[in-house]
Amino acid sequence: MEGPLAMAQILETALLNQLNYQTLVATKAARLREVSQGQLILEFGARRGHDRGVLAGTRAALIGGADFTSNVGISHVLGFPPKGTHAHSMVQTFLTLGMTELDAFRAYADLYPDECLLLVDTINTLGSGIPNAIKVFEELQKKGHQPVGIRLDSGDFAYLSIEAAKMLDAAGFPETMIVLSNELDELNIWQITTQIEQEGPRNGIDPDRLIKRLAYGVGTRLITSAGDSALGGVYKLVALRDDAGWLPAIKLSESRFKTINPGNKQAWRIYDQRNKATADLLSLNEEDPREKEEIILHHSSDPNVSRKLDKKSIREIEPLLVGILKDGELAYEHPSIQELRTIREKDVERLDTGVKRLMNPHIYHVSLTPKLWELKQGLIESVKVKGTEQKK
Amino acid sequence: MEGPLAMAQILETALLNQLNYQTLVATKAARLREVSQGQLILEFGARRGHDRGVLAGTRAALIGGADFTSNVGISHVLGFPPKGTHAHSMVQTFLTLGMTELDAFRAYADLYPDECLLLVDTINTLGSGIPNAIKVFEELQKKGHQPVGIRLDSGDFAYLSIEAAKMLDAAGFPETMIVLSNELDELNIWQITTQIEQEGPRNGIDPDRLIKRLAYGVGTRLITSAGDSALGGVYKLVALRDDAGWLPAIKLSESRFKTINPGNKQAWRIYDQRNKATADLLSLNEEDPREKEEIILHHSSDPNVSRKLDKKSIREIEPLLVGILKDGELAYEHPSIQELRTIREKDVERLDTGVKRLMNPHIYHVSLTPKLWELKQGLIESVKVKGTEQKK
Repeated sequence: MEGPLAMAQILETALLNQLNYQTLVATKAARLREVSQGQLILEFGARRGHDRGVLAGTRAALIGGADFTSNVGISHVLGFPPKGTHAHSMVQTFLTLGMTELDAFRAYADLYPDECLLLVDTINTLGSGIPNAIKVFEELQKKGHQPVGIRLDSGDFAYLSIEAAKMLDAAGFPETMIVLSNELDELNIWQITTQIEQEGPRNGIDPDRLIKRLAYGVGTRLITSAGDSALGGVYKLVALRDDAGWLPAIKLSESRFKTINPGNKQAWRIYDQRNKATADLLSLNEEDPREKEEIILHHSSDPNVSRKLDKKSIREIEPLLVGILKDGELAYEHPSIQELRTIREKDVERLDTGVKRLMNPHIYHVSLTPKLWELKQGLIESVKVKGTEQKK
Repeated sequence: MEGPLAMAQILETALLNQLNYQTLVATKAARLREVSQGQLILEFGARRGHDRGVLAGTRAALIGGADFTSNVGISHVLGFPPKGTHAHSMVQTFLTLGMTELDAFRAYADLYPDECLLLVDTINTLGSGIPNAIKVFEELQKKGHQPVGIRLDSGDFAYLSIEAAKMLDAAGFPETMIVLSNELDELNIWQITTQIEQEGPRNGIDPDRLIKRLAYGVGTRLITSAGDSALGGVYKLVALRDDAGWLPAIKLSESRFKTINPGNKQAWRIYDQRNKATADLLSLNEEDPREKEEIILHHSSDPNVSRKLDKKSIREIEPLLVGILKDGELAYEHPSIQELRTIREKDVERLDTGVKRLMNPHIYHVSLTPKLWELKQGLIESVKVKGTEQKK
């Protein structure tokens, strides 16, 4: 962000508010995308998100990896069809008025014969919900409709989805979907699919085929990024410009890694010959690492750590900063959500599996060029002296 | 919530969205209020909250226990003066343009002579920031102004606040405030004050007096309720009304404690003779426990657990449901934020210390009257039978 000082200062909080939360949720959704093995992810978080912040959060979830949302309003704004199922209250209403779960399912199937996804845990999933769903699916099939599937909203998902698959297979519905929803996140989806891989075969179920019919409704834990509820992005003064050019600014900190990287800079991503990102590099604005024969990656705070990359080991050096406003005018064509999804997919594809590990990932380094490192050290020293002088 | 079925259904997500998040943040703020020993709490979360959700979150924080917010917009809407300090970038700007931290502090003191709170960690807290702040405080004092204090935004707060207190005391500013801010929440405030209580005396500092001059800027961890990022409130169909009256509705669940409590109900809070809440009680709407000689509190899911309260042990039985809309008209006068703060204070005061413990609190029970318990059991049995019949 470059602009008149007062204006840049006024924008600080608003920009951080927009970037931190939406990047957080898009990242959480990308983690879900990675673990879901290509299966559908439905965003269900509106009832637990932060007031109108759910609109931005849902959009971020769709960019990051969710396929649809049950939020009807934002779906229409973004041009996504909303997706959900009926609520427990629909079945409860029928029961309370003296009818049955089967009556409720039939009524829903009459209204949505080609989108019939039934919530089967209002009474008893295996004893009532799934058998009734199968009856309704048979009736739909006779009328020429293709039932969509069932949703499980409670209980042991590894066990119940194996049992559900057995029942649906035996009844001749091997293609129906099994949607899981209840406090899901990337870690418990990973655990559920791992358990299906272990338990499926000894229950006569092909785990790969079962996992391919699963879909995931993720609510609370995506929209609030449970487990890591904030992205700690900050906005720091790094340079001031006077008539002579850019003057780099510094801020020290009690912890060395929080000391800012000064100056008017450019950011680069370096891909190795496998086409995987190997590091991000911060340079001074006037440096172009693409023009150099060898790249030195200096650790951002440890003077003794650096790495040398031969040009031959590098496939591409990508500049990361993109101009949005130029002289107060929009200088950028905003991609559509679909285009953003494609960009995200390609970017995540180019990250090494090690840095994408769900727990204890390998740390992806952001390094400095030697020139930037020297500038930073020089400024730290000069400010330290100032601090000491003032103390006397 | 009572209303036509379709309307009540449409309002579900919107109501949960409003109640869950704001109750969560108000609760987090109340926990901060409890641990802060009466000292100021400033809400600083706008840069990390969820898009426009921060407006609702900040209001909830002010109701729950925060005293002021740095969010200028919502402060004006709610009639609270915004409170904050200058940013690091102010000092950085002076340094970058060849001036000093002292020049920056003087410039700020010139603009805000009676609200002079200085951020002292841009270069070196003890070596530069506090000595410079003291010089400016001395200058302000000579001109007849009362300096407000300093803000620490990094480092070991127990150590730094003791050292800062020593320096400020020695310079003749024992009344100045020490504001702490950096990833604070109720648990680390508790740890910091505990360490001050332990370390203060051996450093010649009266811990009580030091704690009384502290104030807390809480950002990320309050606005996102870090550690517990969502309140899991749900909205369930509990009764339908036909010409004959209310028909209670039920929903079972794979986990017994999640089975809903059916029927059109009233909620009560029971206070013992110490004027502390001892339990909440759900009754059928037509029951009034105030008219009974003894109160039986039945556990909501365990058939073998109940407790009997003699009327003599009870000081008050408070009905908790409040009518907001009646026949589509507003039937409620919305309290001001100040009134809501007073209500919160009185309510929290009447909770036992055990249930307010920050970690592993005693569980506060919501019980059922025997009539409600019997209704629930009867409905569970009847639905179970239905489930079994359908399976045949």
